Amino acid sequence: MSTIDIPAGSGFGLANLPYGVFSPPGAPPRVGVRVGDSVVDLAALLGDDVFARPSLNAFLAQGRARWAEVRERITELVSGDVPGAAVHPLSAVRLHLPFEVADYVDFYASEHHASNLGRLFRPDAAPLMPNWKHLPVGYHGRAGTVVVSGTDIVRPCGQRKAPDEDSPTFGESRRLDIEAELGFVVGTGSPLGTPVACADFAEHVFGAVLVNDWSARDIQAWEYVPLGPFLGKSFATSVSPWVVPLLALEAARVPTPDQHPRPLPYLAETEPWGLDIDLSVEWNGEEVARPPYREMYWSPAQMLAHLTVNGATCRTGDLYASGTISGPEKHQRGAFIELTWGGREPVTVKGEQRTFLQDGDEVCISATAPGADGGRIGFGEVRGRILPARPQ
Amino acid sequence: MSTIDIPAGSGFGLANLPYGVFSPPGAPPRVGVRVGDSVVDLAALLGDDVFARPSLNAFLAQGRARWAEVRERITELVSGDVPGAAVHPLSAVRLHLPFEVADYVDFYASEHHASNLGRLFRPDAAPLMPNWKHLPVGYHGRAGTVVVSGTDIVRPCGQRKAPDEDSPTFGESRRLDIEAELGFVVGTGSPLGTPVACADFAEHVFGAVLVNDWSARDIQAWEYVPLGPFLGKSFATSVSPWVVPLLALEAARVPTPDQHPRPLPYLAETEPWGLDIDLSVEWNGEEVARPPYREMYWSPAQMLAHLTVNGATCRTGDLYASGTISGPEKHQRGAFIELTWGGREPVTVKGEQRTFLQDGDEVCISATAPGADGGRIGFGEVRGRILPARPQ
Repeated sequence: MSTIDIPAGSGFGLANLPYGVFSPPGAPPRVGVRVGDSVVDLAALLGDDVFARPSLNAFLAQGRARWAEVRERITELVSGDVPGAAVHPLSAVRLHLPFEVADYVDFYASEHHASNLGRLFRPDAAPLMPNWKHLPVGYHGRAGTVVVSGTDIVRPCGQRKAPDEDSPTFGESRRLDIEAELGFVVGTGSPLGTPVACADFAEHVFGAVLVNDWSARDIQAWEYVPLGPFLGKSFATSVSPWVVPLLALEAARVPTPDQHPRPLPYLAETEPWGLDIDLSVEWNGEEVARPPYREMYWSPAQMLAHLTVNGATCRTGDLYASGTISGPEKHQRGAFIELTWGGREPVTVKGEQRTFLQDGDEVCISATAPGADGGRIGFGEVRGRILPARPQ
Repeated sequence: MSTIDIPAGSGFGLANLPYGVFSPPGAPPRVGVRVGDSVVDLAALLGDDVFARPSLNAFLAQGRARWAEVRERITELVSGDVPGAAVHPLSAVRLHLPFEVADYVDFYASEHHASNLGRLFRPDAAPLMPNWKHLPVGYHGRAGTVVVSGTDIVRPCGQRKAPDEDSPTFGESRRLDIEAELGFVVGTGSPLGTPVACADFAEHVFGAVLVNDWSARDIQAWEYVPLGPFLGKSFATSVSPWVVPLLALEAARVPTPDQHPRPLPYLAETEPWGLDIDLSVEWNGEEVARPPYREMYWSPAQMLAHLTVNGATCRTGDLYASGTISGPEKHQRGAFIELTWGGREPVTVKGEQRTFLQDGDEVCISATAPGADGGRIGFGEVRGRILPARPQ
């Protein structure tokens, strides 16, 4: 038995307690909670087989009362002496995708991002589409290519056509980009035909992860009319290995920015679910952007209410992401296409002028939020490196 | 022991042998094959537990050689005397969703449909987008709301805005429509970063189902820019309960129509995977359209090659649908928005003038194809009835 060391300012103290899936050397994956620089094996700590599985889904499906009860019990136990066999150094374990992704939806909830992309993709039209301030625009992505942080990203190939070319060519993407986002993980599903009201958000959503929605802008620009992004996005979406429970984000809750025109009643927020989360985007180790989640126009409660208002089910393991987080300032933009204004205004990264991603580049997105103890809690990071395209 | 009666012209003789999931009264779901008006319990017939499961997925994952071997063995066994305990009358069993849907993609592969919708949605522009003849346009749909034939469809609610209205209103869809499609079921997946060549289509795809991609046109028209259809589609997608194996469709294979401009090399077909399948759309029991699958511009082999060319995985249980099947003639249009030209040219259904779906309406899509024995094989049907919207 020993106490778990929690370094000051680690972001992973008792105010956080995020869940993930890990495997110690030679052992199969199971559910753990991060405390400081340690991972606590929950099946060993709590003696509950729901945690002796390679994904969080079974626990997620147990619902909000159970999530609260387990969090209380963990808080109590890890505050005291913990059996040594239940504690692993973070550096000694492998981290896995924390949940099996059911459906994946990507929203577009930052007014600054949507306006910037409108200007870049449709320079001759109004930056925001007429629907944008009436509903959280979103679309379905590919659940099967959601990967955990640390997974290498092979540069995708596909069709691209520049405006001045007559016909498309096939080859590797030359405008490979990131999108720094927050993703929400559904715990308790809803049956077909039963919308989830904004007020019921926390009954259904378990927690949040960081998302890097890798984007091949040249593939996307050619393919996306009229049915939306497809191969420009579907090659990979990376998520952070730790799911921060909503219960740890109480101190981060803030109102969304003023919404005009006033949203239709089904989108009316009954309580604030804006989130005061600070993201940081590092490109090859140099911070190039600090996107502020509190600037997001639509809240995650509004996103879920919209997603289900037509009667669509949500399911345990559904992931829906916010869309790129961009603030009003240039250094707050969460995608390189915005940061470099379509590649026309390079940024300096480790002394080099850069626009889109080069082979060998590594991107790391991290985030922190206010915690209930007056300190900051951490989301950890979502990291990925670009490998050269495979010969076709 | 007894022989299974196969009525002449049933479409479910030995040339077909489609797979589904059924439950006899009081027993759990398991895999069966349809023969005439009977369902043969494959776990009972073959003594293999892979069929004693509530979905086809485990069998699908076993791969092409195994699919062929099982088909041969079933053919041999059901040609002779079959143990009575393995045979159930179709009328006595319940049919379920035949496979767990991993990712769902919907293509847009009919030139006639895409042109018609272009004229209706964007009357001031060219009907086909510039990319349409270069790639099979597609997008991801909601896997969690794929339902089996016979599931009632609750009229969805959502935001609609007519062009002459200043702002959107919330309410039930007034332009509820169908899309008659064919869906392809992936058996063997592909790893991340490894495109599936056109030539390898039949290594990966197990078979085909009928799909009704229910569409709320008013919701779709308001929401779909710039990221594509979302709630206008995600409330429900119905599939037929029988998966017709590709092995039963050999006699249906035809070349696709001429493709100009010539597709890029990764989309070059190495063998014909157009399919000579005749669909029939019944509205309240009256046939209103006969969409011809052989008119589809892009083949399912090209769709899969495109879907994976960026390195995206495909997985066991992936479903990708063709998009609405429409031929050049008016009576060949597989969606009511086309058949009634945006609601401006009503059709007569059982003596009534109709445009979009009313509460209580029932739609049944069926199909047949040439079989290896010189007769026709049947896909069965995908059927659904519209229930009134739920009070919100």
